Amino acid sequence: MSDPVRVTVWGENVHEREEAHVHALYPKGMHAAIASGLAASLGERVRVRTATLDEPEHGLGRSVLDDTDVLTWWGHTAHARVSDAVVDRVQEAVLGGMGLLALHSAHYSKIFQRLLGTTCSLRWRNEGERELVWTVDPAHPIAAGVPLPIVIEAHEMYGEHFDIPPPDELVFISSFAGGEVFRGGCCFRRGSGRIFYFSPGDQDYPIYHHRDVQQVIANAVQWAAPVAGIRGAVPGSPESQVGWFERADA
Amino acid sequence: MSDPVRVTVWGENVHEREEAHVHALYPKGMHAAIASGLAASLGERVRVRTATLDEPEHGLGRSVLDDTDVLTWWGHTAHARVSDAVVDRVQEAVLGGMGLLALHSAHYSKIFQRLLGTTCSLRWRNEGERELVWTVDPAHPIAAGVPLPIVIEAHEMYGEHFDIPPPDELVFISSFAGGEVFRGGCCFRRGSGRIFYFSPGDQDYPIYHHRDVQQVIANAVQWAAPVAGIRGAVPGSPESQVGWFERADA
Amino acid sequence: MSDPVRVTVWGENVHEREEAHVHALYPKGMHAAIASGLAASLGERVRVRTATLDEPEHGLGRSVLDDTDVLTWWGHTAHARVSDAVVDRVQEAVLGGMGLLALHSAHYSKIFQRLLGTTCSLRWRNEGERELVWTVDPAHPIAAGVPLPIVIEAHEMYGEHFDIPPPDELVFISSFAGGEVFRGGCCFRRGSGRIFYFSPGDQDYPIYHHRDVQQVIANAVQWAAPVAGIRGAVPGSPESQVGWFERADA
Amino acid sequence: MSDPVRVTVWGENVHEREEAHVHALYPKGMHAAIASGLAASLGERVRVRTATLDEPEHGLGRSVLDDTDVLTWWGHTAHARVSDAVVDRVQEAVLGGMGLLALHSAHYSKIFQRLLGTTCSLRWRNEGERELVWTVDPAHPIAAGVPLPIVIEAHEMYGEHFDIPPPDELVFISSFAGGEVFRGGCCFRRGSGRIFYFSPGDQDYPIYHHRDVQQVIANAVQWAAPVAGIRGAVPGSPESQVGWFERADA
Repeated sequence: MSDPVRVTVWGENVHEREEAHVHALYPKGMHAAIASGLAASLGERVRVRTATLDEPEHGLGRSVLDDTDVLTWWGHTAHARVSDAVVDRVQEAVLGGMGLLALHSAHYSKIFQRLLGTTCSLRWRNEGERELVWTVDPAHPIAAGVPLPIVIEAHEMYGEHFDIPPPDELVFISSFAGGEVFRGGCCFRRGSGRIFYFSPGDQDYPIYHHRDVQQVIANAVQWAAPVAGIRGAVPGSPESQVGWFERADA
Repeated sequence: MSDPVRVTVWGENVHEREEAHVHALYPKGMHAAIASGLAASLGERVRVRTATLDEPEHGLGRSVLDDTDVLTWWGHTAHARVSDAVVDRVQEAVLGGMGLLALHSAHYSKIFQRLLGTTCSLRWRNEGERELVWTVDPAHPIAAGVPLPIVIEAHEMYGEHFDIPPPDELVFISSFAGGEVFRGGCCFRRGSGRIFYFSPGDQDYPIYHHRDVQQVIANAVQWAAPVAGIRGAVPGSPESQVGWFERADA
Repeated sequence: MSDPVRVTVWGENVHEREEAHVHALYPKGMHAAIASGLAASLGERVRVRTATLDEPEHGLGRSVLDDTDVLTWWGHTAHARVSDAVVDRVQEAVLGGMGLLALHSAHYSKIFQRLLGTTCSLRWRNEGERELVWTVDPAHPIAAGVPLPIVIEAHEMYGEHFDIPPPDELVFISSFAGGEVFRGGCCFRRGSGRIFYFSPGDQDYPIYHHRDVQQVIANAVQWAAPVAGIRGAVPGSPESQVGWFERADA
Repeated sequence: MSDPVRVTVWGENVHEREEAHVHALYPKGMHAAIASGLAASLGERVRVRTATLDEPEHGLGRSVLDDTDVLTWWGHTAHARVSDAVVDRVQEAVLGGMGLLALHSAHYSKIFQRLLGTTCSLRWRNEGERELVWTVDPAHPIAAGVPLPIVIEAHEMYGEHFDIPPPDELVFISSFAGGEVFRGGCCFRRGSGRIFYFSPGDQDYPIYHHRDVQQVIANAVQWAAPVAGIRGAVPGSPESQVGWFERADA
């Protein structure tokens, strides 16, 4: 048996406390709902904790990150309040092998922009339209066990152009009732880390209670976990003498 | 001034002769409409000829291919009537550097399947739905000068899953009124050749008279043309002595 | 516990029987050495059988393929003797989800060329040079546990240009004492199947007894196995009525 | 005739002033040598200016960037002295469509790290070894007209692992006398901009006087120039009402 994947679910936790209709959907916060979904889907294969913006160091001190295989990130209204020092630390952890799931409006989070290098801008409209999430890579582990398409009865529209680098793997494309499309399930490899962006998850809708969305997130956590649970340090640029690799201790 | 791109527009030319409503849309054949669109868009930057299934060697004898920088391919009902010898020859030309545009139902042509190695299957429905063609790579030369989105008022639906290898560059994604999505503008590099698949173009609709579709095809012809007009032979596997590249005539 | 990966190791088994020095290296055939290495590396996580050219249907009848998660392929002198019917069947199995490892001179096998669509040509020289196999994607599961670089004291040189499509993932690049380089560890996704090409493995050298090479092959078998062991049929192109996905039995 | 590509060659210009042997190789600075090579290769197809670290705003004020299609960047010892404000501005220009060539030790420049999101670390050794630059994509426009391989008699070794995202196109792989390999010619697309990293170019060697290196840089400048010379603003995230694209002024 392999060890459980150690997941930290990070939530901004602002809308849930300040807006009644969001609180009604997520009384313990969106992070709690995401964590519950993971525990329900993966059982003993996962060990889940949560962290939020208002905790010291946003709940992401070094000891937490060192004990995390995969970090999920949801933020929206308070991206600017995330400290650059924490972003530095999370970037370092990802490059060293920690997986990262950027959820919905995390497209505009500091950490996502930092890792991708682009604006990550997009079109949007919040009118509760039907979203269909189409798998375009049926053999991808992140798409395992989900229907074609996933039907989300009402959601915010995110549309192209989505200003991201070409994804290393494209798993899902969404369409909306208004006709827009969106590359809403994208994999990126950066350093030793794997990053998955998944667009469903606006705070105004019960998306994280949706069984298929929970399945995708559970799949993605397993996909993003570092190989054999091993995480390394971020490499420097070593000077390397001729034949360095022939030494016994190379 | 660079030399004009030498384009051969290949058409199966069966529907146009056998079905009155297609003949009404394309009295001289779909190939003629595609060729006219190219000439109108590119003027002296292109030299266009056409070839069809019923000609000897389907109009694609070696001398024609040797004089072709980019071949466009439209076929549907008569894929099986294309001779394997011609497919062999076209494959060799593409690997040697000739560009190939596979249009609409050419997803099931022998040459496209041969070059990609997959089934190229898809979902479909011919009910005249609105198709929106969204650019997901706005800086790509094939997307230059087209609106976001291209609106096609009525077309056949092609939907995912489209069983192709991961495209080397993804330029367009279509949505349909019924909610399906389709990776309808895909680039592939094979050997020294560039391949572009573009999904608009069913025979039942006046797609090849659509200005934006003509623009995409004109852009793609320029993109797919071999660098500096140079086409090479398909390489073999030469035995190469140590230091072969240091010889003056390497 | 997940089920063991069912591996079929296919060997041409000609050099081993006809050439004394190859027989000395691989008295039971190269396929037997590859199979032993897998069993030693993976134990109960794998169930290995072998198949060879001279068996009926080359040992790859439908029942064998239906019982295979990953097929490894080694061939060289007898590529032309592999029947097209078997190649058709293997291609169909790969597109349906069976993994394929193409080893060394299998770059010129019918099945590899069929799936990739290019000539797969390369430069070569058989003078027993030192090959260094460098990992360029250290977090890739196929590179887990191997040194940087893998040192192969003597091997045939394979050099660029290697006429393959751009790999979907590039894991290893080799250099040779003569100065050439080669993309010798390449992943391709085709249909629902995963393909890994690995260049070490000429019959004149004891490559398949090399611990690190065995590790790579063991890693690749696990990587190429279909998700959750599920293999599907190759899809057709279904006509799909509006709203087909809303039906309960979609 | 298309307009000339407007190139700004940026040089740190420190080694050339402070070290006699570098000054001897590049009496007017490395930037001047790169600029001369471009002018010699491309003639009227290019309009070249230079800019250096010590100029106000490092010579990269907004008016200069607005008048630049492609920026080439060489830096090494003074990366930290480049102001973040200038890096912000250059990043914005690249995402808006300006091409960027990152040369040699620019792998560790702020702008390259910013755009790629990874550490861009590598192995190195400066012992004047022979480097062979192998084309792995012979049909790529950046490889047009260069020999296979390019031979550089003496250069600093850069070796894997190179901590970059998977390149969108891989054009060159280098080998060194000591056996290392390096992905030394890599294309990235970010926003509307094209980025090319090219590893030859250490200050201790006359690399920028090498004809083949000049050819690669000239090719890359043409490849990286924005399509039709058009550069756009970096997009925001517009709220978009249903049917926004159907309005006449969309």
